Amino acid sequence: MTAPTDRFAATASEPAIAPEPRRLAAIDLGSNSFHLLVANYQDDRLQVVARLGEKVQLAAGLDEDGLLGEDAMTRALDCLARFAPFLEGIGRRDLRVVGTNALRDAANSQDFIERAEALLGTRIEVIAGREEARLIYLGAAHAVAEDGRRLIVDIGGGSTEFIIGERFEPLALESLRMGCVTFTRRFFDSGEITEKRMRRAELAALSELANIRRPYQTIGWADPVGSSGTIKAAAAVIAAAGLGPEGVITRQGLLDLRKRLIKCKRLDKVAMAGLKADRARVFPAGIAILGAVFEAFALDEMRYADGALREGVLYDMVGRNSPEDSRLKTLDNLSRSYGVDGRQADNVASTALGLLDQVREAWELDDDQARFLEWGSRLHEVGLAISHSQFHRHGAYLLEYSDLAGFSRPEQRLLAFLVRAHRRKFPAKEWQALPTAERRSHARLARLLRLAVILNHSRPEQPPALPGLEADGETLHLHLDTSDEPNLLLADLEQEAGYQQAVGLPLTLTTR
Amino acid sequence: MTAPTDRFAATASEPAIAPEPRRLAAIDLGSNSFHLLVANYQDDRLQVVARLGEKVQLAAGLDEDGLLGEDAMTRALDCLARFAPFLEGIGRRDLRVVGTNALRDAANSQDFIERAEALLGTRIEVIAGREEARLIYLGAAHAVAEDGRRLIVDIGGGSTEFIIGERFEPLALESLRMGCVTFTRRFFDSGEITEKRMRRAELAALSELANIRRPYQTIGWADPVGSSGTIKAAAAVIAAAGLGPEGVITRQGLLDLRKRLIKCKRLDKVAMAGLKADRARVFPAGIAILGAVFEAFALDEMRYADGALREGVLYDMVGRNSPEDSRLKTLDNLSRSYGVDGRQADNVASTALGLLDQVREAWELDDDQARFLEWGSRLHEVGLAISHSQFHRHGAYLLEYSDLAGFSRPEQRLLAFLVRAHRRKFPAKEWQALPTAERRSHARLARLLRLAVILNHSRPEQPPALPGLEADGETLHLHLDTSDEPNLLLADLEQEAGYQQAVGLPLTLTTR
Repeated sequence: MTAPTDRFAATASEPAIAPEPRRLAAIDLGSNSFHLLVANYQDDRLQVVARLGEKVQLAAGLDEDGLLGEDAMTRALDCLARFAPFLEGIGRRDLRVVGTNALRDAANSQDFIERAEALLGTRIEVIAGREEARLIYLGAAHAVAEDGRRLIVDIGGGSTEFIIGERFEPLALESLRMGCVTFTRRFFDSGEITEKRMRRAELAALSELANIRRPYQTIGWADPVGSSGTIKAAAAVIAAAGLGPEGVITRQGLLDLRKRLIKCKRLDKVAMAGLKADRARVFPAGIAILGAVFEAFALDEMRYADGALREGVLYDMVGRNSPEDSRLKTLDNLSRSYGVDGRQADNVASTALGLLDQVREAWELDDDQARFLEWGSRLHEVGLAISHSQFHRHGAYLLEYSDLAGFSRPEQRLLAFLVRAHRRKFPAKEWQALPTAERRSHARLARLLRLAVILNHSRPEQPPALPGLEADGETLHLHLDTSDEPNLLLADLEQEAGYQQAVGLPLTLTTR
Repeated sequence: MTAPTDRFAATASEPAIAPEPRRLAAIDLGSNSFHLLVANYQDDRLQVVARLGEKVQLAAGLDEDGLLGEDAMTRALDCLARFAPFLEGIGRRDLRVVGTNALRDAANSQDFIERAEALLGTRIEVIAGREEARLIYLGAAHAVAEDGRRLIVDIGGGSTEFIIGERFEPLALESLRMGCVTFTRRFFDSGEITEKRMRRAELAALSELANIRRPYQTIGWADPVGSSGTIKAAAAVIAAAGLGPEGVITRQGLLDLRKRLIKCKRLDKVAMAGLKADRARVFPAGIAILGAVFEAFALDEMRYADGALREGVLYDMVGRNSPEDSRLKTLDNLSRSYGVDGRQADNVASTALGLLDQVREAWELDDDQARFLEWGSRLHEVGLAISHSQFHRHGAYLLEYSDLAGFSRPEQRLLAFLVRAHRRKFPAKEWQALPTAERRSHARLARLLRLAVILNHSRPEQPPALPGLEADGETLHLHLDTSDEPNLLLADLEQEAGYQQAVGLPLTLTTR
């Protein structure tokens, strides 16, 4: 465990005087290392309070079937137990724990996540590769003071992120499935380091890179920057050998380093000035990936910059729920690019929130859940862009699989579930497939959205007058200000009561 | 069976003199009736040679589990046996057989389709609702001579199509899940006709209509037109009662007709001047749907026009594989709206067709298959719009579920399979799930696309020089003009040989 250190990128400042600063924390459950970062936030600045890291090597603990072994889980949980005391007194909204490639891949990651959530007392979000890239960029962009277009490369344990951006705006984001831990398993499993093995690893990396090489070169950049442990170590080794200035990886230095690694012959014999012992085993695979990056993009040099995923998570948290909330921008883009009918979206959202207000207390719904109900309402028709037939399914597909910047996987799953469940039969199978902890609240939100959609079924110009709604446990009572003559709304609602009853969720209707 | 009749819409002409005219045929396997239409095509005109129709009532033969009963299958196959002699001498490309809602819905429709295909010796396409709407519009647009914007309504046995269009251009296409056969089962199953049952059926139809009412009213129309048996019969009954001019349904006439139906009290007692006996049983449900259409769109009257799905199929066939081929337009729109990289699409298509040429004879591939390989190549990256991660799956989803005008379901399935199979492991499960008849040829096309994608992996400006390719049964031999030094292309191809071998499809590589 490295010791707590000092400052957070360029914006850190002296501790402010009263009032008490807001304390934030980010944990990054990487495929190679876990990191914790704790910072105070005041006057728009972050000051680091604690910084910890451990090489848990989660990705190395995946077996042939993609299952996380008990040893790796224990290593990971022990590490989190050491992080836990630093989280005391930090509120739910000021803490974010993100998992990356190893947790995306592991078939049993849900087991680990549930144990880790119980230990930390908070939610863990497994984030998509491009979301990881976005957050890395946010972290790196704060660490690199100069203006100009830059390429950021972050070689992780299981994935490598490539981002081109200007200032705080990413222009291209990609996450490729190659990392120093997974490539060690794939190409150096025997423990030998040979020219042929290095070249095979490089070719595999070049094959992945071929997908992004041309589009990235078309966008172009002035300044290649690398973050992550592999690149930090490469810069340190090259500087120690006197083959480059501090913090810069030169092409010549990299070629020299590659030769020296092959001369080591075996992973367990890798030892060089500037290289920490716990990095040595995965260093050849990391250098193969870095070499392929230099080759694909014809780089002459790359400088190392501090600041990565965990820093990005903190900066993102500070921006959240404010006008620059990246999630709002994401949803806005999605809604526009699929041509969602804005008026209907607004009307359904307004009705849904009006219904939620009436049961908020009884159902213990918080602001965050209200926000997701509103977002689900705004997007419930997004699948129409694919086809009217089964558009609730298409919308759910788009929300589950699109790269939605700023959203974690559980958040995307919630949006997808709301849209999947908004019409026709209540989707019992998809509902049962949700993690236990999400089942009740997701169904509650879905039921509110269903009612809001029915109340706006005739696509009125304005949202309709709000009916009364009461919740008694899972039973909903809807009070309508209409006669009981057969009419379209009543026929719709009677059918809806049947749909909800069919999955054990009672809905009663009264008219006056 | 009705007797063969005379002319085809407004463009028919006297039989032309030599050369022999091209003969075309369309069969429409509707949920209520099957229809055959045979026409001669010459000098850009169609002249009807034969027109047959039978009330097979396929949708009425669906049981609780959505299975087509043996009785209904026998009725349907008997009818096709009577159609078959009319198809003699008509070439494969001049005959199109389309199935609609009942075959979309039946869980065992593949059984029926295979038996029917064996009987007719040709392929049957089950088409999506919006494709049905597009073809109906094409048929109706030729039947209605005047210009101006029109709403076309076609009440079928299992679905009702709504199209707004001008001349031959549809502006809005929808297919709603309501039809005279399915609504008879749902609301008149007891055989009784009451005010309450009629109203329930109308409310269910209004509920479906609520989804399209406002957008359709926003587009607007000058001229409401109805096609299909229900509307023809309604016009005839109203005219026979002296409540409207020939071929026009007035609102008053419709209300009067509704009252008379309720007075009949039972389906088996429905009998009126102008109504054929074999229409009577499904007439009340059809009138409930028509009444809801009048109510939702506030219509005063609607005129009946001949010309529907089967006529549209013929007009579409005549336009196919010509510059106005609607499929090309569809693919072009899709590719543009998802921002596909055109250069890479062109390069892969060019390589794929160059590979196909070399094995065309050995693998007995025809022009139509070459066309689909080209289209699959042009669309293989369409899923990138959703996410880079697993984009082959996203592309396949879009191609399978989007409303692709001009494409049948098996055609969409082929495109989806090619895109699904174009990278990573060869998808053994999806491959085995294809209908037996498609399995071999689809895999052959998919293998050619895979190789073309690998050869263009580095996204070159021009397609690369074509390697030699030979097929010997399912074994492919690829001859490369390159050294056997480790290089990116060779590494990719070695991995590919492994992927293909894993599903029993050998691929050998030779270099020189």
